[in-house]
Amino acid sequence: MSPATDPPSPHDHTAGVGDAPTTALLTDLYQLTMLHAYWEREMEATAVFEFSVRQLPERRNFLVAAGLEQLIGYLEALHFEPRELEWLDSTGRFGPDFIRRLAQLRFTGDVDAVPEGTVFFAGQPIVRITAPLPQAQFIESRLINLLHFQTLIASKAARCALAADGRTLVDFGLRRAHGAEAGTLAARAAYLAGFDGTATVEAGRRYGIPLFGTMAHSFVQAHRSESDAFRHFVECFPGENTLLIDTFDTLHAARAVVSLAQGLRPLGVRVKAVRIDSGDLAQASRDVRRILDDGGCRDTGIFLSGNLDEFAIAGLLAQGVPADGFGVGTRLDVSADAPTLDCVYKLQEYAGRATRKRSAGKATWPGRKQIERYRDAQGLLTRDAVVLEEEPQRGERLLRPVMRRGRRVGSLPTLAVAREHARREFASLPSPLRSLESRAAFTVDISPRIRELAVAVDTE
Amino acid sequence: MSPATDPPSPHDHTAGVGDAPTTALLTDLYQLTMLHAYWEREMEATAVFEFSVRQLPERRNFLVAAGLEQLIGYLEALHFEPRELEWLDSTGRFGPDFIRRLAQLRFTGDVDAVPEGTVFFAGQPIVRITAPLPQAQFIESRLINLLHFQTLIASKAARCALAADGRTLVDFGLRRAHGAEAGTLAARAAYLAGFDGTATVEAGRRYGIPLFGTMAHSFVQAHRSESDAFRHFVECFPGENTLLIDTFDTLHAARAVVSLAQGLRPLGVRVKAVRIDSGDLAQASRDVRRILDDGGCRDTGIFLSGNLDEFAIAGLLAQGVPADGFGVGTRLDVSADAPTLDCVYKLQEYAGRATRKRSAGKATWPGRKQIERYRDAQGLLTRDAVVLEEEPQRGERLLRPVMRRGRRVGSLPTLAVAREHARREFASLPSPLRSLESRAAFTVDISPRIRELAVAVDTE
Repeated sequence: MSPATDPPSPHDHTAGVGDAPTTALLTDLYQLTMLHAYWEREMEATAVFEFSVRQLPERRNFLVAAGLEQLIGYLEALHFEPRELEWLDSTGRFGPDFIRRLAQLRFTGDVDAVPEGTVFFAGQPIVRITAPLPQAQFIESRLINLLHFQTLIASKAARCALAADGRTLVDFGLRRAHGAEAGTLAARAAYLAGFDGTATVEAGRRYGIPLFGTMAHSFVQAHRSESDAFRHFVECFPGENTLLIDTFDTLHAARAVVSLAQGLRPLGVRVKAVRIDSGDLAQASRDVRRILDDGGCRDTGIFLSGNLDEFAIAGLLAQGVPADGFGVGTRLDVSADAPTLDCVYKLQEYAGRATRKRSAGKATWPGRKQIERYRDAQGLLTRDAVVLEEEPQRGERLLRPVMRRGRRVGSLPTLAVAREHARREFASLPSPLRSLESRAAFTVDISPRIRELAVAVDTE
Repeated sequence: MSPATDPPSPHDHTAGVGDAPTTALLTDLYQLTMLHAYWEREMEATAVFEFSVRQLPERRNFLVAAGLEQLIGYLEALHFEPRELEWLDSTGRFGPDFIRRLAQLRFTGDVDAVPEGTVFFAGQPIVRITAPLPQAQFIESRLINLLHFQTLIASKAARCALAADGRTLVDFGLRRAHGAEAGTLAARAAYLAGFDGTATVEAGRRYGIPLFGTMAHSFVQAHRSESDAFRHFVECFPGENTLLIDTFDTLHAARAVVSLAQGLRPLGVRVKAVRIDSGDLAQASRDVRRILDDGGCRDTGIFLSGNLDEFAIAGLLAQGVPADGFGVGTRLDVSADAPTLDCVYKLQEYAGRATRKRSAGKATWPGRKQIERYRDAQGLLTRDAVVLEEEPQRGERLLRPVMRRGRRVGSLPTLAVAREHARREFASLPSPLRSLESRAAFTVDISPRIRELAVAVDTE
């Protein structure tokens, strides 16, 4: 077997929370039946699929590509375990030849993609898979599952970051994220898009994301008094402490913080911040700021949480609220105002023949495509074009080689590098695209060559 | 060490997709800092926490409890792995005493809960944890994460089942579910609440849920012609085949199906069903039904998909659409119209002292509580009461012992049994609660004893 066709051996990934490599059974049943049909007829020529978002949600002017690292991990590790094959065999749905062949399944294809953190728009392919048809088809379910979720969350998080305008942003969403993987990957996607950290410990371990934490209401309740709870916590964590002050009466608690801080000051210990999680956050934070300032706690920050999202943050800051940071949980981790993206993974070409679907309202453009991006003299985006890969290059091309013949082309950017890339991307957005509310138009041209190809495909 | 306090040894669970037992690091940082503070001061008396949903989403008249099996699996397996402790140690946040103690952490408490599949309402505790404070607090993040998601999806799926009124319902949502665990657990929750099966293979393996599958548009596109694709698929799967007919022109494809079926009939092979995934599903399914019937394919079913939910299904069936089944994907797996529940896990009692929080808009009722349910002579629900556990029993009590001292009390109902329980629960709903659109009131009384306790706690 030549190196070129030698399938990469599955890596020894630890299965677990938030890891991309998961069982190959994490797929839709029709991927297996189609695989069976393709193998049975030896339909193994090269297929080209592209992943794109058909339409932006109503309140998104741009999206942020994320999830590529987990996708590549999945593709590298793709294989069936013997016990998985035994189970499949036991279902009686497939014959022994198919099961034997499934044991050999690896991903040996090419991946071209935009780097994580790249801004993109509707109708643009951000990942292109070029591989033998059975493989390229089989990976569809998990590919969409991975790219969809992190792109969804990074796009929401970017809006929060625009709204927070430099204040500290922390992901608090694990508990109401949709399961374990959603919790850890939401932390990653949010950090990629500009959050400062997360409360989710496993995301800290796995991705090196800075961890933040405060205390729960139950901590206050479990003590004999609120003052006792505060003192106890500060004594345990003299360097890093954020006290939750809304369990009973926020202003009363703020005065207790002042009195505690005054007692601790001679010991060189300070209360780093207070958190307010309910009620009228604007009014409460102003009142608390005054109490803290009057009590000599000018260096104690105010951290706000409780059903926050980009709209709430922008609303608070528009009122001049003295907030140093925000914890954003539920509405970030499920992208509450738009909990899904209308994304697809569609066949563009098979065995050298371009193809497209023409389903009502869901037609696609055929062929292997590229995104070309144009900027003004200041580097701000002016327009994009979707072109065929084979067209002569005119603009900056966004899709780059990531895997060739099942192996990585170099290494992917680290999360820190991707985060810096995202920051530069947001800085290159013209201001209408940064609006949280109004719908901004951004021009994405479809090249004449693609349109001609569509006509040719339809009349074939 | 006596058997009563002997911590259960961690089970040898395979970590992986959709499994509840996950790393103990899947938690919020503040659980670790609070744990540290509790241990440091030996605050290890018994705490009682309850999980409840504060308010129903706008378009839910009831919720369906789900996720208990995964929660119990998590509690049984709770422990830190040496490599996790090494990592925690390496962060420098905690001292060696804390890390050593963390190595001993197990769940040794009690769990009382309503059975999975039980209908419940706002303000009702459906899971109660009674355990030493550090344990009861530590498990909060994953407990909410597990109970929230499956309850969310089961509650959405129940509405789809009410709308579909006996027609086949299949979960198609893996690709746009929020990660791997969401995909597999959504399949489980949907099956629990009345779906007939799922397309997600791993959910079939893990939970024994029936698997369903059709074909993708790309399958049709990869063949030289649509007819060729259909013939190929039916030859591969003569017993079980559903052909996707909307890739190019739905009615043209329906006629191709008829012609294929006529050719295959002498061989004893039939086309089991066709699927329509786009366009005007009502009109298309009527036209397709006529073409199939006229062509002698009365036994070929029609399966509909494409952005369906309970509203779309009810709308189609109100028009008398000839659909035999529905594939429900995205809008089920993220509960698109209400992607989160306002659920909480709150301290009710510590060291024998009842407690509650009084935060603005987020106050809780104190004490160890129970749900009592009342029915009319036909078995239909009439009202519920939330009472203190210690009150004399008057109605049917819903919370039952599930774990004692860290070990299961008997075994949990199987998924099949829980599903049958859910079916009976839905049959016991008075008709206003079954409405998809209008808001129905259901009386949940708070007992006078609880109200008295709240006053006593507040004036303590």
